[in-house]
Amino acid sequence: MQPRVLIIGCGFGGLEAARALQGSSVDVTVVDRNNHHLFQPLLYQVATAGLSAPSIAAPIRSLFRRQGQVTILLGEVLDIDVTRRQARLKDGQCLSYEHLIVAAGATHAYFGHEDWAAHAPGLKTLSDAFEIRRRLLLAFEAAEREDDPQRRADLLRFVVIGAGPTGVELAGTMAEIARHTLPGEFRRIDTRSAKIILIEGGERVLASMPSALSQSAQRQLQALGVDLRLHTRVSAIDARGLDASGPEGPYRIDSSCVVWAAGVAAVPLGRQLAQACALVPDRAGRVPVQPDLSLAGHPEIQVIGDLAAAHSHVPGQPPTPVPGVSPAAKQMGRAAAANLLRRLSGRATRAFRYRDFGNLATLGRHSAVVDLGTPLGPLRFSGYPAWLFWLFAHVYFLIGFRNRLVVLLDWAWAYWTHERHARVVSDLRPR
Amino acid sequence: MQPRVLIIGCGFGGLEAARALQGSSVDVTVVDRNNHHLFQPLLYQVATAGLSAPSIAAPIRSLFRRQGQVTILLGEVLDIDVTRRQARLKDGQCLSYEHLIVAAGATHAYFGHEDWAAHAPGLKTLSDAFEIRRRLLLAFEAAEREDDPQRRADLLRFVVIGAGPTGVELAGTMAEIARHTLPGEFRRIDTRSAKIILIEGGERVLASMPSALSQSAQRQLQALGVDLRLHTRVSAIDARGLDASGPEGPYRIDSSCVVWAAGVAAVPLGRQLAQACALVPDRAGRVPVQPDLSLAGHPEIQVIGDLAAAHSHVPGQPPTPVPGVSPAAKQMGRAAAANLLRRLSGRATRAFRYRDFGNLATLGRHSAVVDLGTPLGPLRFSGYPAWLFWLFAHVYFLIGFRNRLVVLLDWAWAYWTHERHARVVSDLRPR
Repeated sequence: MQPRVLIIGCGFGGLEAARALQGSSVDVTVVDRNNHHLFQPLLYQVATAGLSAPSIAAPIRSLFRRQGQVTILLGEVLDIDVTRRQARLKDGQCLSYEHLIVAAGATHAYFGHEDWAAHAPGLKTLSDAFEIRRRLLLAFEAAEREDDPQRRADLLRFVVIGAGPTGVELAGTMAEIARHTLPGEFRRIDTRSAKIILIEGGERVLASMPSALSQSAQRQLQALGVDLRLHTRVSAIDARGLDASGPEGPYRIDSSCVVWAAGVAAVPLGRQLAQACALVPDRAGRVPVQPDLSLAGHPEIQVIGDLAAAHSHVPGQPPTPVPGVSPAAKQMGRAAAANLLRRLSGRATRAFRYRDFGNLATLGRHSAVVDLGTPLGPLRFSGYPAWLFWLFAHVYFLIGFRNRLVVLLDWAWAYWTHERHARVVSDLRPR
Repeated sequence: MQPRVLIIGCGFGGLEAARALQGSSVDVTVVDRNNHHLFQPLLYQVATAGLSAPSIAAPIRSLFRRQGQVTILLGEVLDIDVTRRQARLKDGQCLSYEHLIVAAGATHAYFGHEDWAAHAPGLKTLSDAFEIRRRLLLAFEAAEREDDPQRRADLLRFVVIGAGPTGVELAGTMAEIARHTLPGEFRRIDTRSAKIILIEGGERVLASMPSALSQSAQRQLQALGVDLRLHTRVSAIDARGLDASGPEGPYRIDSSCVVWAAGVAAVPLGRQLAQACALVPDRAGRVPVQPDLSLAGHPEIQVIGDLAAAHSHVPGQPPTPVPGVSPAAKQMGRAAAANLLRRLSGRATRAFRYRDFGNLATLGRHSAVVDLGTPLGPLRFSGYPAWLFWLFAHVYFLIGFRNRLVVLLDWAWAYWTHERHARVVSDLRPR
């Protein structure tokens, strides 16, 4: 019997871990609650109708078609019994393991305001993306049919909360749609009169990037027509808009389309697992891990990706927290698989070291910021060259040859025509 | 003021009518309950994960981008007040018209068994296609996790009811998926053991085609592994399967995925409009029209496409019923627009004449039947050449250059790899 490895979640971390175990003498089962691996960095393009869902979602099964020792199961893990070494699925079925890699990821967090979720969807899954696409496109449709100028203005006011990479990309693309894609298609409204408001509690956009790039991103966003409101907090969200509070005091924003990009937290499975192992999850619900990504007292369990409160270990330097980005998840996936194989062969595991190759974000047509770490020091640039770099980097990392080709074709088409081909709303009922 | 023309529905008929009015001195409003024109002949490919939704759905607005006199409104028409010349939308708004073209189409009909709809979805809209895709793919996923052989066999039994073009295409493609796409991706089940049952009440498949082609289609379906049951009727459908009755008597089929392709009827708007005009709708709820496609006593109203009980008029021959196929809807759309312009300029309208260029259906990889009318008599062929003809005909008629390119690329990819790229289920909850 080969050792049985269970991997929970097939995002960037789980997928890399399973791939890294390829060809080893282990029996791998991957369980995910979706049937597809999602290329999340481009999810905002599905939400804004630039890409179709299958362009960025690959069936997990087909990714492991040639790996006979990998079994794929569709199911949602509710909790883990670390004593019996079993993961219990939502429908009651239990999956036994000898070695466990938990890569179940993060979800959007409303920080105690869970009732906001209905009015301001976040962007983590394809369903989320379809819901945002629906609200965005139907707002323009409703405005075309609205005679009252006040209601019409409310319908053409869009709010994105949170100016991290997702919020910035969403706001920039929304502005592009209103200014470049839709004009000429409506007879009664001028879509260029639409307002895109980007709300950020902090003092700058893209807070994880160097300050100079944040400044550049802000200039580019404003050039696209995005109304950026820094130092602004949201105190209430309802079906008709939200209450905000900025440097000028509290005020109201009426809007039919509010998107939440302000926070993520680990999935609930993190807290359950931490408690079961007598560990204390961090504020975001992430599980503290050992330097080799295993859990204290449970060397057979490793936690990676957005679910792990992990540190990067460079000899001679103090450990630094690993950021919640996809390259980090992929590196942790490979490191966890390598440590698992080391342990199986009786060798010592190694501490995880995160290699930061840089950071990039796009802001719409021709606009992006790039911050790369190179052996010669940081390389930072923005604008058109950054946008080209961003485009090729994302297409390069897309899963599957066909997806890359189709996404490039879609973008070439969108670039020349300003058209966004996925402007399809299949279900008009509100969620 | 230009004459105001209202077109209800932007399927093949409504789209052609609006296009044919292009450049005329009329003010056209198109109202549709969806934001996209759907290329229905390829909808079964979305349901069976071969194409993504945006590949066969074009935003209606973008189709009329360069036609400044066409206004597009998203809305569902509930009824028509023929005295006031107003169409009332679901949300209460009324649209006035001077000339009306009604092209609201058909929906699936359960002939008094509306409760079957929940257990056996039909295939008319993108939502329907997503629902069928969900049931089809999740049945294989559930089977991979099922230990009981009986339950597993039930999960791998798929039923299509009705062997018209849609039913035949669905059954053939399902068999292809089970035999060619999925083997090698599952570890516990052999997807080739899946059973695809095609139920037909009549004595042959594709009853609208010549008998020799039906025979050929039946042989091709059986070669694909489809279990064809002719002379068989369905008496009950529930969540776990259906009760059927064939030449061998009544029996039960347990199945987790039943698709309804057995009947269509005009949308309810047909009956309302017929009653308002003191006309008697036919059994399928279609509105009887004059030879020029207008309504008796209401020359300002024309009904076209699947909503019309229309006849083809060839001088010296008795009128023949127009079939409910997309070329007929397109021809009626052009004819209605031409007659409207004739009437506006005081000329006499013309009787509609349907030109039947033939009939074709595909049955899976390399299999199709074609029946063409040519000046030299009928041209009928099947198998691989028919499949190639079918493929290019469908790509040629697809709306929009980009869609054609992407669909060709998708098919070339699927052809070489047997992969179906749209195997994405975004929402796992049952509808």
